[in-house]
Amino acid sequence: MKFRRSERLIDMTNYLLEHPRQLIPLTFFVDRYHSAKSSISEDLTIIKQTFEKRGIGSLHTVHGAAGGVKYYVKVRKDEAKPFIEDLCALIASPERLLPGGYLYMTDILSDPSIVQKVGRLFASAYAEANIDVVMTVATKGIPLAYAVASQLNVPVVIVRRDNKVTEGSTVSINYLSGSAKRIQTMVLSKRSMAEGSKVLIVDDFMKAGGTVNGMISMLDEFKAEVAGIAVLVESENIEERLVDEYLSLVRLSDVDVKEKRINVGEGNFFTMN
Amino acid sequence: MKFRRSERLIDMTNYLLEHPRQLIPLTFFVDRYHSAKSSISEDLTIIKQTFEKRGIGSLHTVHGAAGGVKYYVKVRKDEAKPFIEDLCALIASPERLLPGGYLYMTDILSDPSIVQKVGRLFASAYAEANIDVVMTVATKGIPLAYAVASQLNVPVVIVRRDNKVTEGSTVSINYLSGSAKRIQTMVLSKRSMAEGSKVLIVDDFMKAGGTVNGMISMLDEFKAEVAGIAVLVESENIEERLVDEYLSLVRLSDVDVKEKRINVGEGNFFTMN
Repeated sequence: MKFRRSERLIDMTNYLLEHPRQLIPLTFFVDRYHSAKSSISEDLTIIKQTFEKRGIGSLHTVHGAAGGVKYYVKVRKDEAKPFIEDLCALIASPERLLPGGYLYMTDILSDPSIVQKVGRLFASAYAEANIDVVMTVATKGIPLAYAVASQLNVPVVIVRRDNKVTEGSTVSINYLSGSAKRIQTMVLSKRSMAEGSKVLIVDDFMKAGGTVNGMISMLDEFKAEVAGIAVLVESENIEERLVDEYLSLVRLSDVDVKEKRINVGEGNFFTMN
Repeated sequence: MKFRRSERLIDMTNYLLEHPRQLIPLTFFVDRYHSAKSSISEDLTIIKQTFEKRGIGSLHTVHGAAGGVKYYVKVRKDEAKPFIEDLCALIASPERLLPGGYLYMTDILSDPSIVQKVGRLFASAYAEANIDVVMTVATKGIPLAYAVASQLNVPVVIVRRDNKVTEGSTVSINYLSGSAKRIQTMVLSKRSMAEGSKVLIVDDFMKAGGTVNGMISMLDEFKAEVAGIAVLVESENIEERLVDEYLSLVRLSDVDVKEKRINVGEGNFFTMN
């Protein structure tokens, strides 16, 4: 039984969105819909144009015998801009201030639609980079890491602060937290990452960068390398930043606990992209 | 400028998939595509039929002035069955055995495509239930909780084992872990949940159910109520199960460390649904 074009377009859209960064041979769709290759090609042209026009993503066509089509998430700047502005406004609320100048961000990170959008922005920035794994440290970075990883079609590796029996044998490192200058420990299961992996590090918050730096030391232990660093919020006014190149969506420039004032602005997302 | 039907179908499919369980007024699409209401209605009929036929989900139409359309994820049994079978085969591998009869599951939980599918199955089971929040306990349940919550369009609440300054003031409870019979602590930020919330509890693994039971006690503190319990893997042969009603995808019936044998079968997903 043949499929009508309208059905094919709906099902292909869903299929492509569910399989980002995977090369799908044209023959896969030919078999799926019992349709001619020329019809499938026309479908893909319509989808490609609509995805680009509506800011859904981009579709790359690979020609030749091993060819096919690949969907990448690609957020347009005019879509990213208002989202980051909304985030800034949300974060600037004085009720977020906690003792010690920390910010309560749990409500923002508990909203799956915000988390998904942040993931889409990060994945957009690294869509064409060579990335094997997304790494984060428990707990708050985890949802962001999965949101990025599902768009990049790679696994997530979670570094822990403590050792658990369910991790099997582990590698443990000590590192210096940047802001508090305390020695801390990080643990990662030995089975969790292959040697030589290219790793995108993701976290919710970066002050001096001690935690991110700890993850970089952990990568050394696994002979893996940093392919990128992406944080939701970075804090400015840091005497000595331990990490050079990174991507941030939001930048805290001034947190005054006494005056209950939080100054928030865009991160470097638009200058880095 | 008008949109062609093919463009509308592609963009509407993406929009609906990104906004599960949200009532979208027909007028929203009328404005978005500068198209007549009758054309939008026809589009939605085509999408509804295709979503059902292809097992993507279901589309509910709400009539009247405040009417519109709502997308729910709905996984068909013939799609769920082979996925759960694959999971069982994956989990049955003897290399997963850790000292004490624990299982290494980190690799399974690090795969975003598996996590998404588990989330779709859970969300499918509770798609029409009244749920305000998905709750889990750090760390391993977190990705599953977000995968469900993003399909149910509700926030995630993460209970922690330790207190952190970035949580603000917290409520702490002690509970008895079922299998090890040890007193343990759980902590939840006071701001994280409203009184009377209806909560879906999600976790990766359930033995006697001590942790899930701990979360239920935590709900009492917030005057919230259990709307459902969903676990990826449950362990059989438990003398005394602390939790009655729950949903599971996989059931471990026999773990023999000496013989390196793991017996794995389907959970109660198909009998509960």
